[in-house]
Amino acid sequence: MAAAPARPQPVRTLVTIAGPSEDIAVPFTKLTLTNGEELLLSTVEGAHPGLAVQPQLRAPWINQRVGDKHKTQLDYAKAGIVTKEMEYAAVRESFGCGPDMPFTPDVVRQEIAAGRAVLPCNRLHPECEPMVIGRRFSVKVNANIGASALSSDLQAEIAKLHLALKFGADTVMDLSAGVENLAQIRTAILRASPVPIGTVPVYEALDRAHGDPSLLTWEFFRQVIIDQAEQGVDYFTIHAGLTQDLLPYAAARLMGIVSRGGSIMASAMLRQNAENLAWAHFDELMDICRQYDVALSLGDGLRPGALADACDKAQYGELKNIGRLAARCREAGVQCFIEGPGHVPLDRVYENQDLEDQYCGGAPFYTLGPLVSDIAPGYDHITSAIGGSLIAYRGTSMLCYVTPSEHLALPTAEDVKVGLITFKLAAHAADVAKKLPGAQRRDDAMSRARAEFRWYDQFALSLDPEHAEAVWKSQMPDDCAHEPSFCSMCGPRFCPIRLNRKLKAAFENKD
Amino acid sequence: MAAAPARPQPVRTLVTIAGPSEDIAVPFTKLTLTNGEELLLSTVEGAHPGLAVQPQLRAPWINQRVGDKHKTQLDYAKAGIVTKEMEYAAVRESFGCGPDMPFTPDVVRQEIAAGRAVLPCNRLHPECEPMVIGRRFSVKVNANIGASALSSDLQAEIAKLHLALKFGADTVMDLSAGVENLAQIRTAILRASPVPIGTVPVYEALDRAHGDPSLLTWEFFRQVIIDQAEQGVDYFTIHAGLTQDLLPYAAARLMGIVSRGGSIMASAMLRQNAENLAWAHFDELMDICRQYDVALSLGDGLRPGALADACDKAQYGELKNIGRLAARCREAGVQCFIEGPGHVPLDRVYENQDLEDQYCGGAPFYTLGPLVSDIAPGYDHITSAIGGSLIAYRGTSMLCYVTPSEHLALPTAEDVKVGLITFKLAAHAADVAKKLPGAQRRDDAMSRARAEFRWYDQFALSLDPEHAEAVWKSQMPDDCAHEPSFCSMCGPRFCPIRLNRKLKAAFENKD
Repeated sequence: MAAAPARPQPVRTLVTIAGPSEDIAVPFTKLTLTNGEELLLSTVEGAHPGLAVQPQLRAPWINQRVGDKHKTQLDYAKAGIVTKEMEYAAVRESFGCGPDMPFTPDVVRQEIAAGRAVLPCNRLHPECEPMVIGRRFSVKVNANIGASALSSDLQAEIAKLHLALKFGADTVMDLSAGVENLAQIRTAILRASPVPIGTVPVYEALDRAHGDPSLLTWEFFRQVIIDQAEQGVDYFTIHAGLTQDLLPYAAARLMGIVSRGGSIMASAMLRQNAENLAWAHFDELMDICRQYDVALSLGDGLRPGALADACDKAQYGELKNIGRLAARCREAGVQCFIEGPGHVPLDRVYENQDLEDQYCGGAPFYTLGPLVSDIAPGYDHITSAIGGSLIAYRGTSMLCYVTPSEHLALPTAEDVKVGLITFKLAAHAADVAKKLPGAQRRDDAMSRARAEFRWYDQFALSLDPEHAEAVWKSQMPDDCAHEPSFCSMCGPRFCPIRLNRKLKAAFENKD
Repeated sequence: MAAAPARPQPVRTLVTIAGPSEDIAVPFTKLTLTNGEELLLSTVEGAHPGLAVQPQLRAPWINQRVGDKHKTQLDYAKAGIVTKEMEYAAVRESFGCGPDMPFTPDVVRQEIAAGRAVLPCNRLHPECEPMVIGRRFSVKVNANIGASALSSDLQAEIAKLHLALKFGADTVMDLSAGVENLAQIRTAILRASPVPIGTVPVYEALDRAHGDPSLLTWEFFRQVIIDQAEQGVDYFTIHAGLTQDLLPYAAARLMGIVSRGGSIMASAMLRQNAENLAWAHFDELMDICRQYDVALSLGDGLRPGALADACDKAQYGELKNIGRLAARCREAGVQCFIEGPGHVPLDRVYENQDLEDQYCGGAPFYTLGPLVSDIAPGYDHITSAIGGSLIAYRGTSMLCYVTPSEHLALPTAEDVKVGLITFKLAAHAADVAKKLPGAQRRDDAMSRARAEFRWYDQFALSLDPEHAEAVWKSQMPDDCAHEPSFCSMCGPRFCPIRLNRKLKAAFENKD
């Protein structure tokens, strides 16, 4: 058989879009389809994907500000000052929306000033590409990585980071714990990461307290926070709202406490018969965060782990506490956002977003799901994407991904990929539903490619191009593998899509 | 190493629940957990799973009614008569709700009489276990199978049917077309199926017209409908609402017509310059359906195939037409339900259900998704489960499953399984959200099993027990594979679930 003629291919290139200031150049993926159509897609991999040490994009901006009385993006925003980080984030949000830049730097500033958005960027993480999390902007997705006693290989963690970035993680949480080389691993992750890195400091604090919650003191906790801030961590999950008075409600639950951080705090409170350390020392905690501009992700230690526990006094009592802390953060110039559930039945998903708005003054909500059922282990990326897309449409700013292995095992590389694609899909569905400018452009380009049998353009426009192409090829006969005008579903004999050409022609002729 | 001691196992048994009449005995799966807790789960496999020829459960009931003036379940319901089929369906719906039977036979009758529910059961499909589709009842899931020119093996189709039943398909559509042994395959499927079987008769009608829409006459169409009714098909998808005046709207779309049946009808209308055959001959069509009690699934030939085409004049114009046909069906004593989209952005999902209610007088809605994005080929079971769970919560009665291969290829056996489990999950999430009596029982049992580290009970309660167990086992060390009080996610060192026991104890002691 003769070689097939060369087929036109869609092309991906890395381009940069200039911002209002001359030193702002934001990388995007430009997709040029085979019909000449061009589309900008956001990227989280930065201008130099895959480098183990990323360039220090923010270094000159940070250096210029040394000695300022303003410490955080929130300080600047409240003072009416637009930072380079805000400019950069505004260009990122405006991608694909044409020259009008619907999200101007000042819109970003206003949202941060009002506490409705955060821009997590520790001054000691100059490699971080600025991005903004808030309900007016595109919905973000977080992926978790982390070494454990079972797997503490530094290179493996960097590989996980790159995998998460490849599939679009907007932020990454490093949940490493229980390993000797914790500082080394986290520092390596930070230097390699163009996205904000979050942690749960109490994991390391418990390690330092020899795994014994009765020994977990504020001194351990405080020192971990300082050390991690020095490494460059961009946001801390702190379960400061889980106060002693809520423990009886948690004890009465079907599943009790399922948050690991929350249960460490609760253990310490029980063993020491003392108030939550982070609640008790919140001013000092804020002070440290402000010095570095570490954002606080106020953790829901009492997030429901079962439908039966959803929306109970434990959960909403903690949310009210968190709302009080959020107000203190805004006042103190510390950026903060709010963590949310968890297992919640579909009919109560909106209620969770609405109460968060009410209690927390519009601070960005960052949820784990919600999972709308308890009975689907092995499929909980789907259970949580259902609740996740719904709550994101209602206003949640960031979704923590859930992988297919949730409730059963640690995620494999394949699980990480599937979890991320599922959540990028959920976030995108919410962006489209929120009518974010340009959000539906990629869907429309896909549908045009479908209507015109441009199969390779369809793959290029997919959230998982390699997978889509592989599934399609698995059933196409070899001799028509070059963009045939049909697919294996209806076969070549009667194709609805082909009929549409005749339909269009019929009515064009009538005009 | 010594052999591990015998571990208690959850046990599944097939039990029957008696109905009000002595000849009603409905099979359920009884799950006995290792703590003695018992749970009834619905089954669609009948009392004799896997038989190639099912017993004729309904034969005596049907025989008793020969010569009645009433022909359909709707006729009986309107006359105030509760049939055995209604009793049977009422027991199925009431499963797990205790002895109070919240769905009495008369509730089923009332819903059918009002046109808000259908009970698809051709009098020539006596093997069919009666089930009811309607918004007051549990959300149903349909799976598609079917032979094609590429795969026309009778045994393979029966295997697909059994696979669909194993994973809970409440109805099955046989989309076979383009094969010589069509009647033989369909008859075999019907004899083997305890669930209602639906078809799209225009596929076979086009086959008989030699694949040429210009030759597709009412005579071909009518004869196919009679032949398939004689075989015992329980419901027909008929695209009768796609009228000539709507074609210009379809022609103006981005994706045009994506329904295969709809595009065959449109081709015939274009080539013959004539009105839709099924619309023109609807009285005769209803008359045939009434004789056999075949339900009409009024097909949405203009369902949107792209977000860009959602909720347009083509789609809603057809829905209005369908509403008129539904009113005629109710009047004529023909059971009917309504097919729905398709690709719809998340913010317009509810609108679709609400307009269907308004135009179609509350007739059951049966949707394909909706898919809330166009950009996820390979993951469209998820894209559609998001929209599907949401529209089911709003009132849709049945969801047609979408498999991971949608838009790319024909589903493999694995795709069928994943598609079904995904949609059983979406339907279940909606049942829980609708607060159907007993719907959350399985979730609560799962969460109790989680709280008590009863791992094998968790697997037994899962939608996919084998998969859940395999994922869990893949990471458990061999020497603690017998229900350890931790999992690989947090490891043995600090387990939040174990902490809960101490938490409970701490507050019990204080009382």
